[in-house]
Amino acid sequence: MNTPIPMKLQTEIPTNTVAAAGATLTAALKMAPPAADFTGRLSQFRYQMLQAGQDAALIFSPVNLRYLFNYSGEALMAVVTPEQVVLITDYRFIAQAEQESKSVCPKATFFCRDRDRQSLGQAIALQLAAFKARRVWFEDSDISVLLWRAICDDNGLIEFSPCPPHLAAQRMVKDDWEVAQIEQAAAIADLALARALPMLQVGVSEREFATELEYQLKKAGAEDFSFATILGFAERSALPHALPTDKRLKKGDLVVLDFGAVVNGYRSDMTRSFVCGKASPLQQQMYQVVLEAQQAALEAVRAGTSGAALNNIAADILAASPFAKDAGPGLGHGVGLQLHEQPFLGPLCRQLLPENAVITIEPGIYIADFGGVRIEDDVLVTKAGCRILTKAPKQFELALRE
Amino acid sequence: MNTPIPMKLQTEIPTNTVAAAGATLTAALKMAPPAADFTGRLSQFRYQMLQAGQDAALIFSPVNLRYLFNYSGEALMAVVTPEQVVLITDYRFIAQAEQESKSVCPKATFFCRDRDRQSLGQAIALQLAAFKARRVWFEDSDISVLLWRAICDDNGLIEFSPCPPHLAAQRMVKDDWEVAQIEQAAAIADLALARALPMLQVGVSEREFATELEYQLKKAGAEDFSFATILGFAERSALPHALPTDKRLKKGDLVVLDFGAVVNGYRSDMTRSFVCGKASPLQQQMYQVVLEAQQAALEAVRAGTSGAALNNIAADILAASPFAKDAGPGLGHGVGLQLHEQPFLGPLCRQLLPENAVITIEPGIYIADFGGVRIEDDVLVTKAGCRILTKAPKQFELALRE
Repeated sequence: MNTPIPMKLQTEIPTNTVAAAGATLTAALKMAPPAADFTGRLSQFRYQMLQAGQDAALIFSPVNLRYLFNYSGEALMAVVTPEQVVLITDYRFIAQAEQESKSVCPKATFFCRDRDRQSLGQAIALQLAAFKARRVWFEDSDISVLLWRAICDDNGLIEFSPCPPHLAAQRMVKDDWEVAQIEQAAAIADLALARALPMLQVGVSEREFATELEYQLKKAGAEDFSFATILGFAERSALPHALPTDKRLKKGDLVVLDFGAVVNGYRSDMTRSFVCGKASPLQQQMYQVVLEAQQAALEAVRAGTSGAALNNIAADILAASPFAKDAGPGLGHGVGLQLHEQPFLGPLCRQLLPENAVITIEPGIYIADFGGVRIEDDVLVTKAGCRILTKAPKQFELALRE
Repeated sequence: MNTPIPMKLQTEIPTNTVAAAGATLTAALKMAPPAADFTGRLSQFRYQMLQAGQDAALIFSPVNLRYLFNYSGEALMAVVTPEQVVLITDYRFIAQAEQESKSVCPKATFFCRDRDRQSLGQAIALQLAAFKARRVWFEDSDISVLLWRAICDDNGLIEFSPCPPHLAAQRMVKDDWEVAQIEQAAAIADLALARALPMLQVGVSEREFATELEYQLKKAGAEDFSFATILGFAERSALPHALPTDKRLKKGDLVVLDFGAVVNGYRSDMTRSFVCGKASPLQQQMYQVVLEAQQAALEAVRAGTSGAALNNIAADILAASPFAKDAGPGLGHGVGLQLHEQPFLGPLCRQLLPENAVITIEPGIYIADFGGVRIEDDVLVTKAGCRILTKAPKQFELALRE
């Protein structure tokens, strides 16, 4: 851990980060392809269905419903057959479903269920009978035991089996449109941080700063936050998932900030760590170790590397440091329509990274009752290496205003 | 529908709504009881467990985990026996679990699972073996078919059965502390609306106004939003769940705004409808019908009334109006730790409202391609009637600045 930190992947700190982030966002917006290939996605899934001899599939996952049908609302499920699609919802969401899904799936039909008069299982039974479906996949990861039993009661003659995670595997490889959405989300997060950062000064509360940052996220164009903003000062920075409280920032405190923006359903996910003023030698050492672990992993990313191999590169650096017992397990995860999706980068991940996966690289050290450091970026996996999508400077020490 | 609208429940429009809302919030904060009765909640649930001859229960629902153990994070489940509680989570949330749950449940023990080395089913099996549990309830409404099958594979000797919704029934009746939290959430929402409302003028976009309102919610003390803010201008106001877009407000547009604040996990849920400037006769009539339906239902609320009876009072007014075919079904729902919880007020709701339930009353008219009107308040059910918690004025016409 005393080797010098490779600098080539370290973001330079521009003199005007708001302007730089703004320019990056403008460029990302300009370069986005016009549309996603919804037809191709559905064909790919149907191919798997036919190969497995299935007559139909019941799709319950909100993420997969957005991926296949552009639907961003709630309370909808899909019956997919080799030739047809029926989207079942109720009066609250029927207009939204038609608006969002008709254009990307012109052959889809829409079924508005009266929830007081018809169970979901009955509505599904009607469709499956019309299609003469017998062998049917269902997404067992996104339906409760309670609701599934009720659906089965209404569909006694159907031979149901769990749908393998084909769609999760499809979603792991992003097309150009998807990459552009994540890139925009990352640029929005960079810009919001640049605008909010001057407020991160002695005396501000976690809640106040998170509120300002989230306001800037929305103003910069985020349709939502990727997740509840994680922000911990001082010893609270050692909690990997600290939610903002009324705690106020003091000179010398560590700060861990983990947040993201959503664009067209696609998420960014970035962590930056700070110290309020000058770092103590211990704090400085923590930061250097985490940065070194992250840089080494970033340099090793390329299509064909296994998740475990990548994880171990960072884990070995953390394990060889004085902070071995305080290192968080795991290195990162895929990110896209879902905050945490395939691949999951840990010691047991045998998966080889495919080209055009988007993953986070986020090693961390968490010293209980003292504080933590985590640095996280989102990167696009390429044949030759990776492209870093989150560009906010990695500036550890906050310059204090007098 | 030509009877005059009863005015006694209609909120007066104060001259200074920001000051009025601020005073209400200050009063609500002062009057809140110091703590919730976590011990009583757990005892009540354990009584049901013992009556049913169960040795243990597996609690998976995040809402029930907050209700019983004050836990506000993710990725945790509880094994409850007549004498003990074990909370199972992983390194990300173990510190948070101990901080939040130890004080309200001093006898609880905490189990930190290494997710790479032990499945959740194995962790549960260890606990159930230690307690010699054989007959075990599980919350089938809050576990996926996929995860449940894996848990069952690791617990072959246990006789599992679905846990009846006792906790949902318990949560329906709020104690004083819970009412105070919802009251604070409602007061925060009132204040945020009063502060943001001057921005609702010709030219503002749905997204811009929602961003400002959400910023004001956080600044006024909301720990989160109850749900993604619903805001639709013009024909989009006819979508019961419209999410903000870049659409800009024009003179004469209808506006439906539905939003809420969260305080200590408890949610408020309020809808106000506006017209940008002077209402047309049709818009005015829509508003009057909805207001009349809401007022009639509000006047009929009292402990012992059935949900269906209450629903029908409003439904009959809507059905007798020129907007019969455009009325939304259902009248409202319970609200608390969950946005939608028992009782669900619809034509089939035989449930008698218990004293100290908190419910929404929200009739609406939705005319496709034209616009909608919905008015929603949160009320505490009392022996003699109800207490309205959401106090924002019901002012339909927005005064336009020149």
